[in-house]
Amino acid sequence: MLTKGEATKKMIIDASAILFSKKGFKDVSMTDICDATNLSRGGLYRHFSSTSEIFTLLISTERSFDERIKANESALYILKSALDELEKEILDPERSLSLAIYEFASIDENKKLFTSLEKKAKKKWIDLISYGIETGEFKDVDPAKIAELILYYYQGIRMWSKVTDITKRSAKNYSSMIIKILTGEEK
Amino acid sequence: MLTKGEATKKMIIDASAILFSKKGFKDVSMTDICDATNLSRGGLYRHFSSTSEIFTLLISTERSFDERIKANESALYILKSALDELEKEILDPERSLSLAIYEFASIDENKKLFTSLEKKAKKKWIDLISYGIETGEFKDVDPAKIAELILYYYQGIRMWSKVTDITKRSAKNYSSMIIKILTGEEK
Repeated sequence: MLTKGEATKKMIIDASAILFSKKGFKDVSMTDICDATNLSRGGLYRHFSSTSEIFTLLISTERSFDERIKANESALYILKSALDELEKEILDPERSLSLAIYEFASIDENKKLFTSLEKKAKKKWIDLISYGIETGEFKDVDPAKIAELILYYYQGIRMWSKVTDITKRSAKNYSSMIIKILTGEEK
Repeated sequence: MLTKGEATKKMIIDASAILFSKKGFKDVSMTDICDATNLSRGGLYRHFSSTSEIFTLLISTERSFDERIKANESALYILKSALDELEKEILDPERSLSLAIYEFASIDENKKLFTSLEKKAKKKWIDLISYGIETGEFKDVDPAKIAELILYYYQGIRMWSKVTDITKRSAKNYSSMIIKILTGEEK
């Protein structure tokens, strides 16, 4: 169970995520977050000193596939469940952090953090693809190349989901394309 | 040859493109464009009534492959020259209009224009892919699916090129991946 402090932190992060996806990064203030969480200024600052700190935590929580790989789960199964999640995100443009990420990353001092997050995200996918090649579930592809395709294609569609209507079919195309490239099979 | 009016219009659009890629859409004013072009307010307004009008023209000028298809050029050749152009754009983040496009498209009244531009861009690629399948140069893929991959993958990498360093290899990966999907060959 979460302690009271942890529960408050989680509540702050959840409420902030909604604000950031609505307004981007630049236009969200600590006052907005107080209003959204019903916390006093002191109550909020006990946990976080800036919107940067909250946003950094929010975008740094991506989990790797390490545990599932160590547990010898099927690579294809891990892939499919990850793609299902991404599909759901694509179809939920209200929760898209693309614009906020863009604004946050455009601030010079955040560039380093971003380069490291991107590296981490690539590594996560490279590890899964390499594992799937090892188990024989995936074709003998270049893991780094496919990892980039997975990440950039996702970012592109996620960005556009905020400005035009992304259909269910386009979201499905995304995952079926990746499954096809990795396994040669239609989903 | 361009008439004097046409040349001025082109000069305005070129100068504005640089401003939009630097500052996004929202933060560019008609005054900024006067400053960048050395035109008087009257001189600028003779050609354009708003930054929206300039931006709309700027992003609406994408040419289709129709003429080249009608001239029976090789589909693979058309594809490769188009991908070369995109690669160059990816490696030139200073000229990336992603943020400006994002901001412009987020304005409600522009949503319709965007939906139609996206449709046009998809059609352009679908036409080329269908043509390549017909000539036997491309594999029997689903043109609409690959068109989405080409567009969204590009948008994603283009967006990220503004916030992290995109390597030459990542840009190459983009085109070689598409060529591989369409022809089965490594570039």
